[in-house]
Amino acid sequence: MNTYSSKLLENSVNELSKLPGIGKKTALRLALHILKEESNYAESLGSSIIELRNKIQYCKTCHNISDSEACEICANPKRDHSTLCVVEDVRDVMAIENTGQFNGVYHILGGIISPMDGIGPSDLNIESLIRKVSEDNTNEIIMALSTTIEGDTTNYYIYKKLSHFNIKITTIARGISIGDELEYADEITLGRSIINRMPYENSLSEERF
Amino acid sequence: MNTYSSKLLENSVNELSKLPGIGKKTALRLALHILKEESNYAESLGSSIIELRNKIQYCKTCHNISDSEACEICANPKRDHSTLCVVEDVRDVMAIENTGQFNGVYHILGGIISPMDGIGPSDLNIESLIRKVSEDNTNEIIMALSTTIEGDTTNYYIYKKLSHFNIKITTIARGISIGDELEYADEITLGRSIINRMPYENSLSEERF
Repeated sequence: MNTYSSKLLENSVNELSKLPGIGKKTALRLALHILKEESNYAESLGSSIIELRNKIQYCKTCHNISDSEACEICANPKRDHSTLCVVEDVRDVMAIENTGQFNGVYHILGGIISPMDGIGPSDLNIESLIRKVSEDNTNEIIMALSTTIEGDTTNYYIYKKLSHFNIKITTIARGISIGDELEYADEITLGRSIINRMPYENSLSEERF
Repeated sequence: MNTYSSKLLENSVNELSKLPGIGKKTALRLALHILKEESNYAESLGSSIIELRNKIQYCKTCHNISDSEACEICANPKRDHSTLCVVEDVRDVMAIENTGQFNGVYHILGGIISPMDGIGPSDLNIESLIRKVSEDNTNEIIMALSTTIEGDTTNYYIYKKLSHFNIKITTIARGISIGDELEYADEITLGRSIINRMPYENSLSEERF
């Protein structure tokens, strides 16, 4: 006989186990949980998934996930539209927004250059970034990508592509994390943080003092 | 502004994070994964969840999850309907079925007696078990519950309820797991396994010899 006593159960376990990090056992636990809950939970969970995929839009300006043609950030006139923060994906936008320290707008690449995964510059939203910079009144581009080889490669590629425009290109600061102890920091980070030392006054953040 | 740039995204993250073991961060990862996949995946995942909850039935005889009034096991005339294996939930049925060592039928309690969680005998399918035993031609009841205090309590409660019927009541064997080393076994298990020692011939399983 079939391991699952029900085709319906088997079907939903199969679908759930296609999600990243969810194996058959976890999928079964989730399916049994859904069965135990009120039926309106299954209804709202299921329809929220279907609606999400069918109705979602991507902002025409920054490629952020949005409910309309322009995302809330790009549509906000109070944001500084001359400062562009280049990030890998939507989660990075959320992370930076949560800091409350950035008032510019974003440009989402949709990934980083990674030859190992077969992702080249043409797979990313780099063309539209260059077009935006050439057409709009951009003062500064802040590169906020992962500090990995792939992130550095992407940084360099974009830097080269934009170097003939008269704009400031910066990267987010790299160094010792706040709260970290020096003896546990890796050599490269520590070495670079000595080379790129900064005026003491800059380290006096509002939060701490 | 809202942390999520889209209400649709926020909504599905909220629904997904109601699942056990899935927090907001994981839910966001799952939602973004669903967005990256073809739209028919979202469709089949979402509708499988809704269908599961709306169309599922429980076997009238054993309370197993089923697509019809009688589950595949209870409907199978080749199974030994006079041997009843009492288990906590559906997952236990699957686990025992996977061993291929049991040809009887099941009775699913839907939980175990756990005063700490407010679960008493009346919350479980115990009445229907007693009715089944009194009406049908049952020879043996195998108690296959967890070897915890709650499991033991439930075992004892059911044992008392069934003791005036002329049937054999057994529990699954408890002892040292196959492949375990003695020095790491806990004292209670080891102590009991000496008291409940069994003829050597019984330990010669087909699989190993």
